[in-house]
Amino acid sequence: MILRKNETGSIPVHELIQRRWSPRDFSPLGVEREKLSALFQAAQSTPSSFNEQPWAYIVAAKENPTDFERILNALAPRNQEWAQHAPVLIVSLAKQNFEVDGRTNHHALYDLGAASAHLTFQATALGLHVHQMGGFSREKIKEEFSVPQGFEPIAVLAVGYFDETKSQPTAIRKRKPLKDFVFESHWGVSSPSVIIEKQKKFNLN
Amino acid sequence: MILRKNETGSIPVHELIQRRWSPRDFSPLGVEREKLSALFQAAQSTPSSFNEQPWAYIVAAKENPTDFERILNALAPRNQEWAQHAPVLIVSLAKQNFEVDGRTNHHALYDLGAASAHLTFQATALGLHVHQMGGFSREKIKEEFSVPQGFEPIAVLAVGYFDETKSQPTAIRKRKPLKDFVFESHWGVSSPSVIIEKQKKFNLN
Repeated sequence: MILRKNETGSIPVHELIQRRWSPRDFSPLGVEREKLSALFQAAQSTPSSFNEQPWAYIVAAKENPTDFERILNALAPRNQEWAQHAPVLIVSLAKQNFEVDGRTNHHALYDLGAASAHLTFQATALGLHVHQMGGFSREKIKEEFSVPQGFEPIAVLAVGYFDETKSQPTAIRKRKPLKDFVFESHWGVSSPSVIIEKQKKFNLN
Repeated sequence: MILRKNETGSIPVHELIQRRWSPRDFSPLGVEREKLSALFQAAQSTPSSFNEQPWAYIVAAKENPTDFERILNALAPRNQEWAQHAPVLIVSLAKQNFEVDGRTNHHALYDLGAASAHLTFQATALGLHVHQMGGFSREKIKEEFSVPQGFEPIAVLAVGYFDETKSQPTAIRKRKPLKDFVFESHWGVSSPSVIIEKQKKFNLN
């Protein structure tokens, strides 16, 4: 489907991007294995610098309480509080050096971030939600899962269905206006392409 | 649209992810301003650590040859060769420190990579293609556009329409199998969620 201009001349953001948000209220409902597989297949096709694919994931579903607890216990307490109710926790890890010659891969985190965005996009398409966390102990994860040197845990992703008995937040999605981060000709000079930006309100986080 | 299982029991990757690829053959056709704006609006709604939104973009369309050349000249010669035919070049930059207290933002690159992935989904939805490059001079970009300290140029994105007079590559999209990067319980132990992965062939890069 190719999006066309809407009546006002501006083009809407794709619905999967608009619908994506990061809930804290997860339903206890488990995530189907074939859906999990689809999430990782989405991550798999991400482009990367020299096609290095510098990503790895450790996944723990709640059906396996031991593994789930090992990730949960590595989270900061404020995250444990709500993430304990998610049915699946996933650690994303970056491979720091190129396979071929051991050089530092300066795009490893950039590419991993893109891979997790692909995963999240697919999750949204499947009715799932993803909430990423930076607040966790990298050391605990390394120890618990014997992560080899050269791989660094970067984020933990809580994945599951939104608890529909809870209400969605009514807060506005707070984002910088385009004029503050899209420049042209010189740093700080807003690109004309942002002029047509409409004042938009989101009611999702 | 919620994707359902297909007949074989596996779930297909969303078509915008399947269709995305990185051409080198761009049509000279320009990119409409309202489409460019939509790309940045997609980047804008990306989630980020502490909602820092540590991203910035410098955009140069070929209609403005001076600015376009300034980005083009910063590219590695092998990239200049094909990227000179793209109608738009965009530099992505990461903000290295948190606004509030100047601490290093260890997720800046991860979040920027996600933002550029959002930009790329939107581009695909609009019939556009994105080809990202790591091969360019960060110093030249900093100098040319007076990039302030604290921001680091990370990638250059060529954006435009595919030149339909050229044939799409027939090479297989080379990716590691899921079993090599999705683990469970212990590093190197493939997650059962990858067992259902089918042998897939892509004819895109």
